[in-house]
Amino acid sequence: MNGRNTGDIDVQDGRSRVVIEGVKPEVDGGRFPIKRIVGEQVVVEADIFADSNDALSCLLLYRKEDEPQWKEIPMEPLGNDRWRGSFVVKELGCYRYSITAWVDRFSTWRQGLVKKVEDDQDVSVDILAGVEIIEEASPRAPDIDGEKLQAWARRLRSKEDPSERVQLALDDELVRLIARYPDTRLSTAYEKELMVVVDRDKARFSAWYEVFPRSCASEPGHHGTFKHCEDRLPYIAAMGFDVLYLPPIHPIGRTHRKGKNNIPEAGPEDTGSPWAIGSEEGGHKAVHPGLGTLGDFRHLVTKAEEQGMEVAIDLAFQCTHDHPYVEEHPGWFHWRPDGTIQHAENPPKKYEDIYPLNFETEQWKDLWEELKDIVLFWLDQGVRIFRADNPHTKPFVFWEWLINGVKKDHPEVLFLSEAFTRPKVMYRLAKLGFTQSYTYFAWRNTKWEITQYFTELYHGEVREFFRPNLWPNTPDILTEYLQMGGRPAFMLRLVLAATLGANYGIYGPAFELCENRPKEFGSEEYLDSEKYEIKQWDLTRPQSLKDLIARVNRIRRQNPALQSDWSLRFHPVDNEQLICYSKHSEDLSNLIVVVVNLDPHHTHGGWIELPLSYMGLDPNRPYQVHDLLSDARYLWQGPRNYVELNPHIIPAHIFQVRRRVRTERDFDYYL
Amino acid sequence: MNGRNTGDIDVQDGRSRVVIEGVKPEVDGGRFPIKRIVGEQVVVEADIFADSNDALSCLLLYRKEDEPQWKEIPMEPLGNDRWRGSFVVKELGCYRYSITAWVDRFSTWRQGLVKKVEDDQDVSVDILAGVEIIEEASPRAPDIDGEKLQAWARRLRSKEDPSERVQLALDDELVRLIARYPDTRLSTAYEKELMVVVDRDKARFSAWYEVFPRSCASEPGHHGTFKHCEDRLPYIAAMGFDVLYLPPIHPIGRTHRKGKNNIPEAGPEDTGSPWAIGSEEGGHKAVHPGLGTLGDFRHLVTKAEEQGMEVAIDLAFQCTHDHPYVEEHPGWFHWRPDGTIQHAENPPKKYEDIYPLNFETEQWKDLWEELKDIVLFWLDQGVRIFRADNPHTKPFVFWEWLINGVKKDHPEVLFLSEAFTRPKVMYRLAKLGFTQSYTYFAWRNTKWEITQYFTELYHGEVREFFRPNLWPNTPDILTEYLQMGGRPAFMLRLVLAATLGANYGIYGPAFELCENRPKEFGSEEYLDSEKYEIKQWDLTRPQSLKDLIARVNRIRRQNPALQSDWSLRFHPVDNEQLICYSKHSEDLSNLIVVVVNLDPHHTHGGWIELPLSYMGLDPNRPYQVHDLLSDARYLWQGPRNYVELNPHIIPAHIFQVRRRVRTERDFDYYL
Repeated sequence: MNGRNTGDIDVQDGRSRVVIEGVKPEVDGGRFPIKRIVGEQVVVEADIFADSNDALSCLLLYRKEDEPQWKEIPMEPLGNDRWRGSFVVKELGCYRYSITAWVDRFSTWRQGLVKKVEDDQDVSVDILAGVEIIEEASPRAPDIDGEKLQAWARRLRSKEDPSERVQLALDDELVRLIARYPDTRLSTAYEKELMVVVDRDKARFSAWYEVFPRSCASEPGHHGTFKHCEDRLPYIAAMGFDVLYLPPIHPIGRTHRKGKNNIPEAGPEDTGSPWAIGSEEGGHKAVHPGLGTLGDFRHLVTKAEEQGMEVAIDLAFQCTHDHPYVEEHPGWFHWRPDGTIQHAENPPKKYEDIYPLNFETEQWKDLWEELKDIVLFWLDQGVRIFRADNPHTKPFVFWEWLINGVKKDHPEVLFLSEAFTRPKVMYRLAKLGFTQSYTYFAWRNTKWEITQYFTELYHGEVREFFRPNLWPNTPDILTEYLQMGGRPAFMLRLVLAATLGANYGIYGPAFELCENRPKEFGSEEYLDSEKYEIKQWDLTRPQSLKDLIARVNRIRRQNPALQSDWSLRFHPVDNEQLICYSKHSEDLSNLIVVVVNLDPHHTHGGWIELPLSYMGLDPNRPYQVHDLLSDARYLWQGPRNYVELNPHIIPAHIFQVRRRVRTERDFDYYL
Repeated sequence: MNGRNTGDIDVQDGRSRVVIEGVKPEVDGGRFPIKRIVGEQVVVEADIFADSNDALSCLLLYRKEDEPQWKEIPMEPLGNDRWRGSFVVKELGCYRYSITAWVDRFSTWRQGLVKKVEDDQDVSVDILAGVEIIEEASPRAPDIDGEKLQAWARRLRSKEDPSERVQLALDDELVRLIARYPDTRLSTAYEKELMVVVDRDKARFSAWYEVFPRSCASEPGHHGTFKHCEDRLPYIAAMGFDVLYLPPIHPIGRTHRKGKNNIPEAGPEDTGSPWAIGSEEGGHKAVHPGLGTLGDFRHLVTKAEEQGMEVAIDLAFQCTHDHPYVEEHPGWFHWRPDGTIQHAENPPKKYEDIYPLNFETEQWKDLWEELKDIVLFWLDQGVRIFRADNPHTKPFVFWEWLINGVKKDHPEVLFLSEAFTRPKVMYRLAKLGFTQSYTYFAWRNTKWEITQYFTELYHGEVREFFRPNLWPNTPDILTEYLQMGGRPAFMLRLVLAATLGANYGIYGPAFELCENRPKEFGSEEYLDSEKYEIKQWDLTRPQSLKDLIARVNRIRRQNPALQSDWSLRFHPVDNEQLICYSKHSEDLSNLIVVVVNLDPHHTHGGWIELPLSYMGLDPNRPYQVHDLLSDARYLWQGPRNYVELNPHIIPAHIFQVRRRVRTERDFDYYL
């Protein structure tokens, strides 16, 4: 369109009469791909129409990006000029899809013939017009079918009896035969090829556990190692997590190292923040000597895999003063007029221990290549999941280049965006390639907030590219809600995270031990934060939620309804402190209804209202709701039923809805 | 994007950090222009952001299409990364607009400095960093300003006192000076140039009157001529119309000519349908001999102009068997196997007197050029407004080429799309270039229907390209509502059309004479339709609405609120038969509130509720509503007021709302 003036319409062939518009899904006009996992469907809709009332044929085209040939799927009309088709993405990597459509002369002719016959009009000339269409089609058909078409034409020409000719002309076999050889010379191709990035299962369904390896030592005061971390694996695996996320494991700088509780001057024993990367012992491709060796790390990766967990590491693209890059590539940093390097800051806040990289350097290409090389280095160590630290402080185009470049050869790699920033920035990072994204979940506590936010995430257009990963806490985020609500708040936020989000995660052991002391009133920082010191957690504390977490994660694994997000629906409850929602598998065979008491202090009861027909439940028959948390079973009938939850016992129900099945012997049971 | 694979991100300069997305208005990703009239504003919004928290500068760019240089308008932030700018289109033709944005180093530095100063941090090095930015800017500035910048830098370097340096660094004059010479080397240009088609006033505000010239004869039974039509002009002008639309004025075919009431065989006296174009006397560039000569037509055009009316003619691209094209260009028609030409049909309906053109002919280029030549021919005769007959039965791309081709040299030309068909087809025709479009107004009668439809038209995205023209009747459409509702129905539908739509039209004299006899029950065709015979209308019938129409059109001319559509808002009334809505001028100085009784049979009363603060009215002071139809004035206060309308007297109020103004002498009057 650009470059030419409005008056100059460049018409290739003015006889291509079909128009294709309003194609969905399409992210920013096709600028970005949609996301799916292997085995999922891509349902494509479009407005497709021509002038007049002619019949159309519309094909959805798709292919793996590296395949030259399109596969074709006939699209079906939905009414109001809307058409739909779908395909399943069966392999990792990138797919393309597009649409082609044309005026179907034979169908147009046939539908006119039917109406004229119904109106008792003379159709002898119309039959001949149809014969011409058949004769024109026959050269497009291979030998046998071509001959068949010729035979149809001959029979139509030779038949004398008008009604027999009509019957012959409208024969279904003829429709099917000729439909295989359409005249597509004047077809319209949609002007864009749209993209799908296909990830593996874990992109859609994962349970993350963040742990600081240096706090895993068995003896107090010792610096934990990868070996200690291995010893911790059974504990974590027993809770049912499948991603083990480690904060940065690299050498930590000494210059401007932070002390406990983030004080500016570290004492000699202070270990510093793992995000202050780089010392004389190395940078982003090295491991902290206190944790062990690169070999120890690889061993941990293997051991974790044996227990059903993948290790994810942090991509924190920043350096300390002591990072080798400072000497090797001074041009990669911001230099101040006084000859010092600019540390990170968000005025008035200062992060003196951390130097951001200067992405506006003239050597940006070298910098980019080196950062990509860091990712490739850890790929070689067996890592397939990366959590990007503060990605919103690096240029968008850099991430797009990095992620797409890595995934081109390694489509199994997952990237989690740790951007807690403005909504459009977070969405842009997801569009450009991040597999999963942190969300505002931690700060969405009321029924209204939760309903609004998850409706936007799962039923808005963002769902095509933004895969939420819900964290009730992180080392940076101890919310006011958790600070105030005590153990019941931890329980209910866990259930919300694990059932609202097919992807969720916790920062442990702080979470399961209900650690909720803030650094100070009004702060979301932990008191004695693990970011600045080695912690010794007492995993045996009686208030630990490990058993509840284990149960919730088991429920997630056993119920496909909880393994994806788009089926989420909220249901009315006549108490603002109770929230009710459901998720179901595509065929409705697995149906989960969750009720949570959002008030961590008081017992609440209320009437919930379920959309029975939407859920495939017979309003005239009882159904069983089986609370997978308490194992209690209730017999319900009709849409409205009463629930009551005491947060000090357990603030949630996770009901599996079981339909009644009548056996031959008239013995009822629930499936 | 297409052509490359997902992994290959082609990065021009990785240091361009700004992203521009979500640009509005933008029709189909910029594929089509938006529409404006001369003097209107184009308000452009976009999501613009970079990584981190740096300050941005954003410019809206625009230019007339044939100008090489962009004009630049600074955009303002609205919050949530949304930016807005606007420009006024001052000339007919096509404009382009786009956006450019960059990270503003000086503003970023300045906002950091402010925060650090507020936090009492030492900023001596920061000041020096600012000096470097100023020194870098100075070579971009011309002599004097460059020297000024250098002077600022010197003063900042030389100042000793910290607080004086800060004061100097934050000086407003410095901000204004340096802002004029930004470093745009790493700016991001929005990847599209978007288009605006700018029409003249009449595209937005027009009152059409459709009349058959052949029915304008003064003596019964005579074929009316252009001269007779001239005699009719004062009558039409007195009603206040400004577009005089004539159905086709060309020779009418004899073969298969239709008789009265559309019977298949015409008698020797039957005149046939004006849409059956072409005889041995000529085709689309000829005038019907019974109407007069081409010179007579030009004379009519001139005379109409003298009385404030423009003549619009019909573009009915179809032929009879007798059209010269049939012999000259047999390839432009669909030939049937029996050697006849395919007539128009929409099975089971047949239009034996009309041959559609075959737009799939291999000679489509010749056909297109000839059809464009028809338009140019009538341009030469002084016509500047065309009503396209059934445009949805010709290819979209043809219209796009035709309209844009004509408007390139004649941007003052208006095209009205007479497409009564599926919504997406109607919208596509508007997108591709039609200036105005017929609508479903004729069939939207209830409050719900009207509210829904006009909310879609004026507050949905279609308003950027679809300019509705509301017709309560046409020669093809005598609605059930008018058939059943008698004179009150005609009155209320007139008021609705003329106040809901800045563009509206009637087919007269059938409309003002309240002609409402259908051909048969269930039909929307007129009995003894003027399409197939010459009518003798008695313009002096006492029930004529001509005086009401004159008054309504005068109200439209005197009230800017009614001369555009986007300000339309509906207001609650506690009676489903009463509809209430308002329109206002941009500055609210002209405010019209319309109340219509939609029931043509019974008197209805109810309480309307006006949004006083939105309307700029003081809820604590009375205001006057002046019914411009009856000239009655009412004093109202507060949002809720009572109205009652007897449809047999007049079924509508058109209130001008007058605010109370207090004079110096404490004498109140209403403005």
